[in-house]
Amino acid sequence: MTVYLDYNATTPVREAVLDEMLPYLKSGFGNPSSAHVYGRLAKEAVVKARSRIAQAVGCQPSQVIFTSGGSEANNLFLKGLAASLKPSKIAISAIEHPSVAKPAETLACSGWALRRIAVDQHGFLDMNDAKSALSPPCSMVSVMLANNETGAIQDVERIAELARSEKICMHTDAVQAFGKIPLDFSKLGVHAMTISAHKIYGPKGVGALIVDKRLPLMPLIEGGGQESGLRSGTENVAAIVGFGAAAEHAVSGMSDLMSRIGWLREKLECGLSEMGAFLFSKAGLRLPNTTYFSFPGIDGPTLVTEMDRAGFAIASGSACSSGATEPSATLLAMGVDADLARGAVRVSLGLENTESHVGDFLAAMHVTLSRLSGMMRRLQA
Amino acid sequence: MTVYLDYNATTPVREAVLDEMLPYLKSGFGNPSSAHVYGRLAKEAVVKARSRIAQAVGCQPSQVIFTSGGSEANNLFLKGLAASLKPSKIAISAIEHPSVAKPAETLACSGWALRRIAVDQHGFLDMNDAKSALSPPCSMVSVMLANNETGAIQDVERIAELARSEKICMHTDAVQAFGKIPLDFSKLGVHAMTISAHKIYGPKGVGALIVDKRLPLMPLIEGGGQESGLRSGTENVAAIVGFGAAAEHAVSGMSDLMSRIGWLREKLECGLSEMGAFLFSKAGLRLPNTTYFSFPGIDGPTLVTEMDRAGFAIASGSACSSGATEPSATLLAMGVDADLARGAVRVSLGLENTESHVGDFLAAMHVTLSRLSGMMRRLQA
Repeated sequence: MTVYLDYNATTPVREAVLDEMLPYLKSGFGNPSSAHVYGRLAKEAVVKARSRIAQAVGCQPSQVIFTSGGSEANNLFLKGLAASLKPSKIAISAIEHPSVAKPAETLACSGWALRRIAVDQHGFLDMNDAKSALSPPCSMVSVMLANNETGAIQDVERIAELARSEKICMHTDAVQAFGKIPLDFSKLGVHAMTISAHKIYGPKGVGALIVDKRLPLMPLIEGGGQESGLRSGTENVAAIVGFGAAAEHAVSGMSDLMSRIGWLREKLECGLSEMGAFLFSKAGLRLPNTTYFSFPGIDGPTLVTEMDRAGFAIASGSACSSGATEPSATLLAMGVDADLARGAVRVSLGLENTESHVGDFLAAMHVTLSRLSGMMRRLQA
Repeated sequence: MTVYLDYNATTPVREAVLDEMLPYLKSGFGNPSSAHVYGRLAKEAVVKARSRIAQAVGCQPSQVIFTSGGSEANNLFLKGLAASLKPSKIAISAIEHPSVAKPAETLACSGWALRRIAVDQHGFLDMNDAKSALSPPCSMVSVMLANNETGAIQDVERIAELARSEKICMHTDAVQAFGKIPLDFSKLGVHAMTISAHKIYGPKGVGALIVDKRLPLMPLIEGGGQESGLRSGTENVAAIVGFGAAAEHAVSGMSDLMSRIGWLREKLECGLSEMGAFLFSKAGLRLPNTTYFSFPGIDGPTLVTEMDRAGFAIASGSACSSGATEPSATLLAMGVDADLARGAVRVSLGLENTESHVGDFLAAMHVTLSRLSGMMRRLQA
């Protein structure tokens, strides 16, 4: 059985979460829009899930707009807001997820100026550059709370303060942060925030955009008028129920999980450093579960393949763009040299990991590295 | 236990479908974009589901673009195509689902001329008006295959022929038709077709747009580039697997199911007519499971509520716009007078219905009608 060490890519559904979902995949199958008992039961389930999520992230239930996932929520903010604003400037960090970066690039083709906020060599936002990016006539900004690759946590609260003082609508993609660090929508001070279920031991196919209701957002998917008219389509009831349950567990179990996982990462990074790994973003605040590293001269995708054969599931670059062979855009934005960037590999720990997983992983890594280094030497000889 | 007679609103997940989904909600939880064994297994599952769906609807697997459901697929066609065309005229039938009508209205606010194709009193497309609507400079047309309320089946093949001769991109919303009548994408001759899982005993939260790959479609949701770049976001693997299974069952079991259900509807409509019901769209080809009727002078939503109390789940108007109190837009387009339209109630039969359900329903309807008529008489006296 391969040891899963890729929890930033996706997580298994928690058993207690699946147990809550199952009734809605069986007898509780109604359409929440229906005016009969099947509809009412489905609607009540959605209402309950909405309020559990609101509770978990510090907002009102009416601020939770369910979507099909994080990518849709990010697109909804960018395109939905742009649809009601006069084109001006949009600022995003240079290390956003493609589901923020790509729609921003699309806006740049239709009258918007796109400004990328620089990050330093450790992957943290350059605050001076942020100030300059947010100068008029900027009307939208999106900065992720935690990076999916490096785990670097940005000072979103400070950017939000800047944004508000300039009357700029501010969004944060909190998909990777949720469940790993404390998350409070109202404390962050942003106008919109993206979260997703399948990163917090909930099901795939559901996420949410948390919104300040004064935001002049237009829907991306129109139709029956569900989700206060901001997202039409029959609600994915079972998944929404699972999201609600997962959000509650994510918050209640977070400190215990993260202190345990944080300790495992300490051991992991100790071992990796001893083997000569270069660790990215170590100089600042990171998610407690994420380690992003590179062995100079060793190709990342090759290392992932070899470790997969050895029984360990890890990632090279962001999961969503795997299959692509270009080096990570995040590392390039950090100014990491191309050789080190090509070697980048991510371990992201989670619920089911144990101390022996880490020990076994380090042992297997040692063997794999020796073999790959030997091959490299023979190839160069 | 309330008898479910609202299968056009949504369907329960078939047990065999859920059985196929469960492994992907448990150990098979990988992200299809991941380069390790968890990712590969998830990817294989998506590939298999894609090919089962292609087989079921008569297209190539590469033509299946998974979405979060029918509403998203409809929006993807309309907005995704409009994004790459010069604004001209878009034609839709006057009885489209809101997830076609609303995005079309939005296009009408940004340079497109919106032309609604009239239907006759029975809810069937006026072919002369269709010809006139498809005159230059029309570049997009969307006509549903079967109406969700009346069940009326349109001659989409003929419209598609017209559209192709005028070089117009033609879409059909086949959400209600799939699983109820034979469906063949290539035979229909359209450029795009929407289908959804939760209307064919599959899970909510997944649908597809079947596309002619020459269509210059732009994505609505951008990001990691999944679904050939036309729909980003981590694939909803378990739901996609369920969709594949449901599609296969829908096709293999269709004739048996529909001949049985068709017979139940005969009995139902016989009974309803005897009680004085007016049946909509009886004059043409309808889905075999759908009955849409009205008792003159009896309010539809009230009848739905009373029948719910009596243990029968039926619908008034389209499920997606329930909660709204305006009479059905479909019936208004058919020129049905407002009083009869306000009385409209839909019974849509499905997999689990039996002859005794129909008998019991008719008996309960008789009692309810007598009571409501008595109340009306007393109110008028």
